[in-house]
Amino acid sequence: MSRIVYVNGEYLPEEEAKISVFDRGFLMADGVYEVTSVLEGRLVDFAGHMARLKRSLAELDMAMPVTDAELEAIHRRMVADNGIEEGLVYMQITRGAADRDFAYPEGATPSLVLFTQKKALIDSAAAKAGLRVATLPDLRWKRRDIKTVQLLAPSMAKMAAKAQGKDDAWMVDEDGFVTEGSSNNAYIVTKAGTIVTRHLSNDILHGITRKAVLSFAREAQMKVEERPFTVAEAQDAAEAFITSASSFVTPVVEIDGTALGDGAPGPVARRLREIYVAESRKAAV
Amino acid sequence: MSRIVYVNGEYLPEEEAKISVFDRGFLMADGVYEVTSVLEGRLVDFAGHMARLKRSLAELDMAMPVTDAELEAIHRRMVADNGIEEGLVYMQITRGAADRDFAYPEGATPSLVLFTQKKALIDSAAAKAGLRVATLPDLRWKRRDIKTVQLLAPSMAKMAAKAQGKDDAWMVDEDGFVTEGSSNNAYIVTKAGTIVTRHLSNDILHGITRKAVLSFAREAQMKVEERPFTVAEAQDAAEAFITSASSFVTPVVEIDGTALGDGAPGPVARRLREIYVAESRKAAV
Repeated sequence: MSRIVYVNGEYLPEEEAKISVFDRGFLMADGVYEVTSVLEGRLVDFAGHMARLKRSLAELDMAMPVTDAELEAIHRRMVADNGIEEGLVYMQITRGAADRDFAYPEGATPSLVLFTQKKALIDSAAAKAGLRVATLPDLRWKRRDIKTVQLLAPSMAKMAAKAQGKDDAWMVDEDGFVTEGSSNNAYIVTKAGTIVTRHLSNDILHGITRKAVLSFAREAQMKVEERPFTVAEAQDAAEAFITSASSFVTPVVEIDGTALGDGAPGPVARRLREIYVAESRKAAV
Repeated sequence: MSRIVYVNGEYLPEEEAKISVFDRGFLMADGVYEVTSVLEGRLVDFAGHMARLKRSLAELDMAMPVTDAELEAIHRRMVADNGIEEGLVYMQITRGAADRDFAYPEGATPSLVLFTQKKALIDSAAAKAGLRVATLPDLRWKRRDIKTVQLLAPSMAKMAAKAQGKDDAWMVDEDGFVTEGSSNNAYIVTKAGTIVTRHLSNDILHGITRKAVLSFAREAQMKVEERPFTVAEAQDAAEAFITSASSFVTPVVEIDGTALGDGAPGPVARRLREIYVAESRKAAV
């Protein structure tokens, strides 16, 4: 069955969901996006995604094409029309269509596109088995805090990891410190039980799930350190995990061929996933 | 009058030139491009652009959607149908449309889009007056040798330069060395008359016009050094210029408020522009 896709005011069958080739999202990656997860037909941390969206737009001097209330209503209709009980709502805003020029066009109308993906988020094979990751150089630009569609570098990293027979990539800056996963934030748990994840800066995405999970961890009296860590420290850790809107909390069991702990998902990651799922179910709107 | 735009086998009025919102060029900047200049209705250094295109595609494991002969024929028809005597042909290839995933899709058909822009390339105000540039941090990714559509960083740099009242940006890496202009290669001419431009690496685009201009310079017995230079060295230079397919050779007369020489276009830049235009007219096909 064809999905219903939202494109600039219209709800269209996906085969008809098209955008101008002059859209700056297509020609210059001049666009930002958010992915909101759906549990039991309800949106998880929608307010968090909207706050980050506005930050991304502001960093790029880009306008919101609709009001907050309209954007929420479009999200809800996408969930309803596509019968999404569990899955994702993808939303992209670009600077709009204009004749190609490196300078921003004056008077262009921003484009707004939404589509859904059905996906088993809770009953996830990756969450049960844990991920094996390969570390790769972080080739991305220097403003990774802005959630733009410039995703070729993490896409290449994911493919390079898969070529090594691994599940995903952790990206490493020239200084040897891990930045984050290809589309998720990265964490280790030291042998002393401390959760370590890179601090917020222009070097990583400011994960909405990251924020929630760190808050839940602190509420559960877990010790959290926000600082960079090296690949060697990660390989020596008791356990590791990732967070993202689509993977929630997912354990990492191997880094560059080195098994962590006993090679099975660790207790901290499992516990944080349980808490995150339970809290998200409660709070989803 | 509406342009005719090429989209995946069809020649369409620009209002109807659309691409799927699932195209990875739109969702993930997973695409490459070339811009070929047109003089007297003929293509300038088309072979050079095709060679670079194939290199970009190979670096990304992306396929050519048509044969070389077909791509040349499409370029020629775009020039003819749009009555381009002088201007540009823009061509973009993406990995094609597929449900969104960081992993490359299997079996997706690459997308091919071409459009034209009429532009006075020879009788250029910028070439007569020279450009005033501002230097800005180079925020781009680490594979600038691949000509991808990830152009948000240079677009931002161009806007930041304009906000300073300047014409364009020269981007500077963390080590203090100039990489290139927002959409062009950067050169200085030392007081001893040596042309200096950054050497080829992953740090800059391997300009087709750069290659031709350096060759013409050497044929004219000018001394050329391919090495990095700092902003301070540039500000102390006798003159400076940029090259690109759309600007040919264009003088730079000011860097961060410091006038070069007497503040007018220098003789080396003017001479190289004359040679480039004359040779391109002769060689265009």
